Parts: sequence; C-alpha cells; structure tokens
Amino acid sequence: MKIISFLFLLTVTAFSQHAEKKVFPDAKESDPELLRWMNGFPPAEEKTVRFSDGTFFMFPQLRWTVANFRQLMPTVRVSRGLEAPIPLPRKERSDIDDIEFTPIGSDQPMTWAASLMKNYTDGILVLHKGNIVYERYFGALKEDEVHAAMSVTKSFVGTLAAMLVFEGKLDTSKMVVDYIPELKESAYADASVRQVMDMTTGLKFSEDYSDPKAEIWAFGTAGNPLPKPKDYKGPRSYYEYLQTVQKQGEHGTGFGYKTVNTEVLGWIVARASGLSVPNLLSQRIWRRLGMEQSAYFTVDGIGTAFAGGGLNAGLRDMARFGEMMRNNGRFGEQQIIPQAAVQDIRSGGDKLKFNKSGINLSGWSYRNMWWITNNEHGAFTARGVHGQTIYIDPMAEMVIVRFASHPIAKNAAFDAYSLPAYHSLAKYLMQN
Amino acid sequence: MKIISFLFLLTVTAFSQHAEKKVFPDAKESDPELLRWMNGFPPAEEKTVRFSDGTFFMFPQLRWTVANFRQLMPTVRVSRGLEAPIPLPRKERSDIDDIEFTPIGSDQPMTWAASLMKNYTDGILVLHKGNIVYERYFGALKEDEVHAAMSVTKSFVGTLAAMLVFEGKLDTSKMVVDYIPELKESAYADASVRQVMDMTTGLKFSEDYSDPKAEIWAFGTAGNPLPKPKDYKGPRSYYEYLQTVQKQGEHGTGFGYKTVNTEVLGWIVARASGLSVPNLLSQRIWRRLGMEQSAYFTVDGIGTAFAGGGLNAGLRDMARFGEMMRNNGRFGEQQIIPQAAVQDIRSGGDKLKFNKSGINLSGWSYRNMWWITNNEHGAFTARGVHGQTIYIDPMAEMVIVRFASHPIAKNAAFDAYSLPAYHSLAKYLMQN
Repeated sequence: MKIISFLFLLTVTAFSQHAEKKVFPDAKESDPELLRWMNGFPPAEEKTVRFSDGTFFMFPQLRWTVANFRQLMPTVRVSRGLEAPIPLPRKERSDIDDIEFTPIGSDQPMTWAASLMKNYTDGILVLHKGNIVYERYFGALKEDEVHAAMSVTKSFVGTLAAMLVFEGKLDTSKMVVDYIPELKESAYADASVRQVMDMTTGLKFSEDYSDPKAEIWAFGTAGNPLPKPKDYKGPRSYYEYLQTVQKQGEHGTGFGYKTVNTEVLGWIVARASGLSVPNLLSQRIWRRLGMEQSAYFTVDGIGTAFAGGGLNAGLRDMARFGEMMRNNGRFGEQQIIPQAAVQDIRSGGDKLKFNKSGINLSGWSYRNMWWITNNEHGAFTARGVHGQTIYIDPMAEMVIVRFASHPIAKNAAFDAYSLPAYHSLAKYLMQN
Repeated sequence: MKIISFLFLLTVTAFSQHAEKKVFPDAKESDPELLRWMNGFPPAEEKTVRFSDGTFFMFPQLRWTVANFRQLMPTVRVSRGLEAPIPLPRKERSDIDDIEFTPIGSDQPMTWAASLMKNYTDGILVLHKGNIVYERYFGALKEDEVHAAMSVTKSFVGTLAAMLVFEGKLDTSKMVVDYIPELKESAYADASVRQVMDMTTGLKFSEDYSDPKAEIWAFGTAGNPLPKPKDYKGPRSYYEYLQTVQKQGEHGTGFGYKTVNTEVLGWIVARASGLSVPNLLSQRIWRRLGMEQSAYFTVDGIGTAFAGGGLNAGLRDMARFGEMMRNNGRFGEQQIIPQAAVQDIRSGGDKLKFNKSGINLSGWSYRNMWWITNNEHGAFTARGVHGQTIYIDPMAEMVIVRFASHPIAKNAAFDAYSLPAYHSLAKYLMQN
C-alpha cells in the first residue's frame, strides 16, 4: 500500500520548481463550491476527494480539503469549553477594497480586493484597534467553519513554549535531552531548547520536495496515521522519527527552517507542562479568549498532534489570538500570556543567523517560532504554506488573519502580493 | 493489510455468546483514567490504543475509545453554530442515589447508585420537568467532551425522516427506489420507505458476530475508511454496500433490527432534503436547541456519515434533544420537529410484527427508528450497544440520557439493571 506523506503541511519550500512554472486555474475557476467537490449522495467519482489516493492535496481539490481535513483523517479537539463566545466588536468600513499598493517587483498598482483573488484567499479578517473593520469569506470557508493553519501552527506552539519559559516551567538554556532523554542518539543530543525554539539547529533534514530522498518524506511517512505496509521498518510516529534525525553542521550558527524543530518543541512543551499541545492550547488560550469554535489538530498513528502544522481553526478565533498577541498577551481584562513572553517574541532573533538561511525576506529574523519583519512598524507574523497568515502590526494597531489555498506552497511565490498590501493597509488605517 | 470491521457499532446482538459468559473487570477496575490509556508523551506501547490493530474496540480499551473516536478515524462535524449555548435549568436533588429498584430476574433490591457501576456508566443525566435533577460523569467522559451514541444515532435519523414526512418532503408510501434508484437490484427494490423506517424489511443480513460469514462483516469492511487491500473487489462505501443487500422473506411482515435499514434511510433523508445527515441534523436540530458542543459522525472512505451508529455528542446536548422530544417537538418557544411527527413516533409500531423478532422486550414496538415500551407511562427510548440510551417518560415528565461502555454490546445483557431503575425513578419523581 502506498503511504501518502504529509508533504504539504510541512514547509515553506516549494512544491517543486515545476509547480511554480505551471499555469493554474485562477481563484474563480478553481472555486471549490463551483467545482462541487464531495457534493451529492454519493459524490460523483471524479468529484470525490480521498486521503488514501492523495487526491486531497492536489490542486484544485486542495481548495476543498483546507476546510475539511477532519473528514479525511483522525484529529484531536482543542476545546473552546462551554461558555458563551465573546463577540469581537465590529466597525466595518467600505473603503478597504479600493486601497492600492504596488506588488514587489511590479510597477503597476493593485487593489486590495484584487490581491485577495490573486492569493486564492479563503478568508481574511482585519482588526483595527480591536474592531473588525473587514471580513470576507471565499472558497470552501464559512464563518462557522475551520480552516487548516498549516505552519501558522508553529507560532502557537512557540507562544506556548515562551509562556512556559516566563512562568519558570521551561528553561531555554537547558539541553533538549534534559526534557526528552529519548533524543540522546539524535542530532538533538547537543542542542539547547533555545536553539530549537529559534530553529538554529544544524540538521540533516531537507524539506525539498523535488528530491525523492529528502528527509521530509520519511518524516511524513512516520506521521501518517494510516497503517504501515507489512515490510515497513521505519519509525511509526512523529516521536519515533525525531529520534532518527541526524546532525549536519553546528547548532546555533544559522537559522534553518525545519518542521522537525517544532515537533521537538511540541514534545518538550508536553513534557514540561504535563499536557499535550492540544490540551495546553485549550486550557491556556482556547478557553480564555471567548473563542467561537473549538479547533483541532491532525494526529499520527498513536494520537500525537502534528505540532509543526496540524492546527485547524476558525478565522475569527485566529483573529482573537492575534489581537491578544498585539496587546502584549492581554485579552480583555485578563493577562493570557506573560507580557515578557510576547516581548521576547517581538524583539526578534539574530538577523545575521537569519540571513544565512538564504530566505528572501531581507532584514527579517525568527524568534520562538514567529517571523519578525523588523520593519518600521515592528510587524511580526505567523506564516504557513499556501498562504496562511497572522500579521500583527503594533504601530498601526492592526491584526490581519488570512486563510488561503494558493496552488503553490511556499509563501515566497505570493509574498509580493501580500506583504506590501498589508503594509499599505497599515499605513492607510493610521491616516484614515 | 487487515481491514478492521465496524462490528462494534452496528447492532444490539451480542459480541458473541462467549463474551456473555466471560468475566470482565468491573467498572472501577476498568476505569480508563485509572488504566491511563493514551497517557504520556508518547503513551507506553501497552497503553496505546490504535484503530489499525483493532485494540480500540477491545475491552477495557473500549472505555477510552467511546470518548475519543475522532482521534482514531475521520469524522464530520454536526455544527452547533456560533450562538451562546442555552443553559438547562438545574434543580439537583440528593435523594436519587438511594432509590431502590428490583432488577429483572432478581429478588434483591439494588440502589440507583449501584446500578450505575453495574452498567459501566460513563455519564448519566436526569431531567424532570425540564430541570436537571441528577448528573454524573465517570470513566473517560467529562461534561465538555462527547461520547459515542452508537445506535442511538438511528433515532436521530428516524426523527429527521419523520420531520420530512410531516413537512411533505418525504412520502412513506413511496418505494425506496423512488428516492434511491441505485437500489433497484437490491433487496430494497420492492420495499417502501415506511418499511425501512420501521425496520420491517425482509433482508438476508445477519448481525451475528459469532458467524464469520455474517453480512455485518462485509458491511463494516465497505464502510471502513482505511484504504482497501489491493486484491479487494467488494463495495467501497456504505452506499455501494447497500446496493448488494439481498432479500430474505417478505417485506412488511415482521420487525427485524438491521443497521442497513438506517443507512438506507440516511441516504433517503439526504436525497429528500438535499443535505447530508450531519448537515440536516445541524440545521434543523443542533443549531436550534442551544447545544453546548458541536457533535460529529464517523465517516466512510468517501465522507458519508455512518447513519446507523456514527454520532458522537455531549451528554447535556443529548438531554436537550430528549427534552424536545418529550415536549412533542417544542424547545423553549420554538417548534423544532412537527408535533405530528413526534406523535407518530410515540404512538408506536405494530406489536405483532415486533414480537416476531424474538427480541425479549415484551409488549414493545418499533416506529421511525425508536423503541416504544408501550408501558403505562408511555415511555419511548433510543438504544445503542454497550448501554447508550435516551429514555423518555412523558407521564413522569422525565428524560434520562445515559452513555456507557459495558463490556457486552447488546442491551439485553444489562437491561435488567436499567429499565426497572428508570421506571422506579419515574414513579418516585411523580410522588416526591
């Protein structure tokens, strides 16, 4: 039996060079409602999206899948609890669609509204001073449904870890093996918790999907919840896989974006807190922000949540989290995350180490699983493949959350139509 | 690869004669919290519960699984919507635990409290005149978690169908094939919708698990969401399986409890309403009763909900549904289900046809996927394997909902400790 890997969730590197050059149907042509995936009783064969044959992550089926992961694989809930949701105040404005910005590498202006289609946006919400000023849904997403957050998940795990650090329950100067002795034969044997949190580990771990020998494939196979083939001898869970990761280069010298670091951090967070990542996220965040919907994680064959990319959540709930981060960990009258933890994220990581990664985000850095733009507004962001985003601009008192299903995985393929749009909107909101 | 069948969910017949004679650890000894299933990061090998190896439905692992199905297989949500839950009023009383009743076939009295342990109760709630008078949680269930409803699911599907009938969207006198032409080569070719709703079809379909050739195995294999083995030639979904069901005897002559009837009814309900069973249940019931938690169904490999036994829901939400049924379809100020539909259920089915089934529930009948006791209180009930129950006593203005994880599947094995307890409580509440 073919094991389908979780390639799609795991990285900001490209699907393949090929994918970038391919011409895809545009957002309207690929609309999952229009294409009627999984529609009918039963759906027609050619409209059926399956996990086992890999169709679920092909484009344009992907545009249905992003809002329906739980129908394809086992998941674990992040409970909102039973209390009434706390509504976000609303001051919608009609002028945002017409705001213009200039895409990177272009000399033609583009409107905000046009950028949403260009980016295959499924849902986008803008908070300004805590009020919803803009909210739109497209594709398979509805206001009362959840969407895959992909690697935005990493920033949730990094925030939980930073919280534990400033509560004295996790020591970043300690070694990984002080918390996870099982990793003593792996690359993590001589890595510190801090190096994992900032992804400055030196690992033999390629997330290059165009290479069939890339380690990302074995990682995906280990974490795949389907039964393994009879002759399969490899690791059978995320945790088993992590014990096989080998070192390459030195730890602490440069930033290297590797999903396995977040899996290790999720493991550390669980050991340090005594709660699984989904349960800790529920107790400390999801039950405390008046969330409208319970969220969920995909899990491996022994029920471990995919810390590197498995979160699925509602758009407005993502906005609540972003707003809490903008307010230095406060939400309403409550301090949810220690202010020092949020400050530690916002102050960013080592820019020189970041530059060594070769990622084309000039002047940025990476800290506690967050991307720090170091721009003049102090913006920081959570990023996931296919366009998932939390973008927080403290100076503009603005939070943007976006779910998307772009045919190309890596954000680099469409940052040109997003990052300048966000920054232009921030400047506009400060003036208008 | 071994395909694990969904045997467990499907029937009120016994696991096996063997199981009935086996001595199982009692409720305390088998407590899933005590046994620490899936506890730790990762859980120890001997504490790991898996879908693929069948451990999930072995006893006592089953006691963990009943509250965690979604961690083992794909599911689809029954959304509660985004509104605030409507609290059930509460007038708890302390005298219920000491109420005594005499189990069937015994001459020794037993207390209500003792019966809960005897029945491996995971959660039980009693409403009297709409107030919560008693609520307890045990085992793996918490007030903010959901539990498998097993065949209680059937009564939800039957209620939806009855609703459509009295709204003029479904005609019980029509033939099944008028709605589902795909069934024209099956046993359902000459069955009416009414015969399906009351399970009076004549089918070659055994749910006897002690027979390895019983049709229930092929049904479970078809509905199993895991990929099929390469050499597998059989049906690949619930709907494909239903097309293979063969006739045995005549339709309309006797009651025969067969899960496939509910699968057919779910298909009819979807076609007649244009909505899947989970979506119709959400729109017409889950979003309208102030539910505290979204529910979910397990699904097959093409995303079809298991209408015969796949619902998982919160205990208090089950109570809200039961209370609505007690009030002839009203909940608060709203008529949720047509009063005539509830009356049609409560007035019951043909007792003579019921008697032909050989089920040891003297004087009972079956109507629209509900069990009607025809006792002096007019009680009617929804029943699922391992002890799942909604028990509605209109005369006593009482609703009991119970989730359980009894080691034996069929209710007949423990009705002796449940039915007289419910009736004694009803009489007590009418007098005290």
